[in-house]
Amino acid sequence: MLQRPPAEPGMREEEVDTPALILDLDAFEANLDAMAAFLAPTGAKLRAHAKTHKSPVVALQQMRRGAVGQCVQKVAEAEALAWGGVPDILVSNEVVSPRKLARLLALSAISKVALCADDAAGVALIEQAAEAAGQRATVLVEIDVGAGRCGVAPGPEAVALASRIAASPHLIFGGLQAYHGSAQHIRSPEGRAAAIEAAIGHTRRSVEQLRQQGLACAIVGGAGTGTFPHEAASGVYNEVQAGSYAFMDADYAANEQAPPFRHALFVLAQVMSAPRQGFAVLDAGHKAAPTDSGFPKVWQRPGLRYAGASDEHGNLLAEDGPAPKLGEKLRLVPGHCDPTIDRYDWFVGVRNGRVECLWPITARGAMQ
Amino acid sequence: MLQRPPAEPGMREEEVDTPALILDLDAFEANLDAMAAFLAPTGAKLRAHAKTHKSPVVALQQMRRGAVGQCVQKVAEAEALAWGGVPDILVSNEVVSPRKLARLLALSAISKVALCADDAAGVALIEQAAEAAGQRATVLVEIDVGAGRCGVAPGPEAVALASRIAASPHLIFGGLQAYHGSAQHIRSPEGRAAAIEAAIGHTRRSVEQLRQQGLACAIVGGAGTGTFPHEAASGVYNEVQAGSYAFMDADYAANEQAPPFRHALFVLAQVMSAPRQGFAVLDAGHKAAPTDSGFPKVWQRPGLRYAGASDEHGNLLAEDGPAPKLGEKLRLVPGHCDPTIDRYDWFVGVRNGRVECLWPITARGAMQ
Repeated sequence: MLQRPPAEPGMREEEVDTPALILDLDAFEANLDAMAAFLAPTGAKLRAHAKTHKSPVVALQQMRRGAVGQCVQKVAEAEALAWGGVPDILVSNEVVSPRKLARLLALSAISKVALCADDAAGVALIEQAAEAAGQRATVLVEIDVGAGRCGVAPGPEAVALASRIAASPHLIFGGLQAYHGSAQHIRSPEGRAAAIEAAIGHTRRSVEQLRQQGLACAIVGGAGTGTFPHEAASGVYNEVQAGSYAFMDADYAANEQAPPFRHALFVLAQVMSAPRQGFAVLDAGHKAAPTDSGFPKVWQRPGLRYAGASDEHGNLLAEDGPAPKLGEKLRLVPGHCDPTIDRYDWFVGVRNGRVECLWPITARGAMQ
Repeated sequence: MLQRPPAEPGMREEEVDTPALILDLDAFEANLDAMAAFLAPTGAKLRAHAKTHKSPVVALQQMRRGAVGQCVQKVAEAEALAWGGVPDILVSNEVVSPRKLARLLALSAISKVALCADDAAGVALIEQAAEAAGQRATVLVEIDVGAGRCGVAPGPEAVALASRIAASPHLIFGGLQAYHGSAQHIRSPEGRAAAIEAAIGHTRRSVEQLRQQGLACAIVGGAGTGTFPHEAASGVYNEVQAGSYAFMDADYAANEQAPPFRHALFVLAQVMSAPRQGFAVLDAGHKAAPTDSGFPKVWQRPGLRYAGASDEHGNLLAEDGPAPKLGEKLRLVPGHCDPTIDRYDWFVGVRNGRVECLWPITARGAMQ
């Protein structure tokens, strides 16, 4: 069952029912504009990551500002975007289920789609699905540029897998997926720069070795909100895949980072119990604001700290000054925007204290 | 958008699309039967907690085995249950939003409803909503019996708030809510027994002081899967509110516990990448199996350990023996059943290796 919208356009923010996902439209639009302005003079385009926003409404606003397409991690996310009008989608991930591959290829009628592989057995599955669908599927080779997760080794292994793809009458070699996930959260700019310098080196050598075999990379993609200036300036990457930049969260805010993005995403929560001095309980626990990257921060209320989460309760300590009163509503900055957005069915867009719009989070829960 | 069911009845489990929420029906039914058999000779009835299962289908199976009703934490959960045929629902939590109170009271036409309060200001809000709805609302007083979260102090404070409720022409005093949440996860039986002994003492004294004021407690409720034998044997509690017992999870399994319940809930995940020896990547990260109570455990595959989660990837280490192969499907025991169930739209009921049924998780995401 879909959850009903927690607000209606025209309401004041303090009338919005809680917990709700608030999108500060001024900050959100400023973030989209800042990314577009930053990338314009570089050699890289934005292919924003929809695993963060889960919404074709957001995707199309990114594309109106120059993004060439969207990334997703899941076929069900690709479906939600394609059905919502997004014309170019890369599954920046491996897909090894025949049922999922058939679903992805079925989207080709309305959207350009591509996906990644890091294994010859996976390539064979894509090949079979493409043959069955009567299509040529575009496949990128994922290389491991330091994250230690998916991906073949850069260099000869990547060339071998790309050659396997290019040799198939049912497949098109689409380029390289070269994302360094763990580098996004290194706190110091120097640490991130060093990690990405190595990733760029692996990617550059792989592109060159592929070129020597006559294999051109239409897409060389990677990068996230923590590192994209490096990949964009590399001359090697032509697409960056940032997602969190549009919203920001407490984890990314802990990076020392340029260009600066603004907090645009908040969980609005209400004080449902104020049982003793210096302590209050919010109606937003870890189901409302997941804690995989730490607790949320209380927005613009110095002295208040979100200090504990259970399923449906958030413990608030007033460490300096009075605790908020029963019924008061507060904004929280989520610890991690991606899983937080994925808990809600609606963005509540707010400007100047008023609800301006409601946007459905169409790919909420799209894990398959 | 609802997610499509990942299976159809009759499929073999290994054909189920991933990630999916598997319910082992034999284990699930054994757990429901074990709780019913355990409680029958005690003075306590089960009012199972639906914040765990989020499904009227599960609720009605509990009630067919003797449960007197259901608990919820949220009004939106109460709606999902009432609309699904559950006739008796307690919001075991405070509700301070007039909009939510009106929604809850609107359910009275089809279901008995009650809720908790821990503040005179909150009672006044319920009173106004009841008057506006032309109803008498049943209100329990929540007392803090050691968890340090919501609730007034046991004893005189509880009596004062109960008297305030009983004096209102729009309200009915319904009893005490006396849940000790943090005691559920104390690992040793002795530690849990000691914590609950104190909680029972607070509750017993409060019930007695209320009785002296002519205030009878129709419900004295509390307890969870970790402690319910104590509350059930206390002679004071007449309702226990366990939820996780039906499913179990890795966190509750770490308790030394009797009666034993079986693991009935699993996340089925697929190996989507096997890039190097001793390591594989599953298609289930912390969006598919939240990590607030630790990583999931790999089910019946000794030597395999789930060692890291990102949004959509789970890192699997083969510490003894070979790593699973690309495309292989594994069951994971979630770290914490409540937030895990809340990520899915469907239970996939499995018996003897075959999908027997699909049950909608109607209150998925019901946070308001």
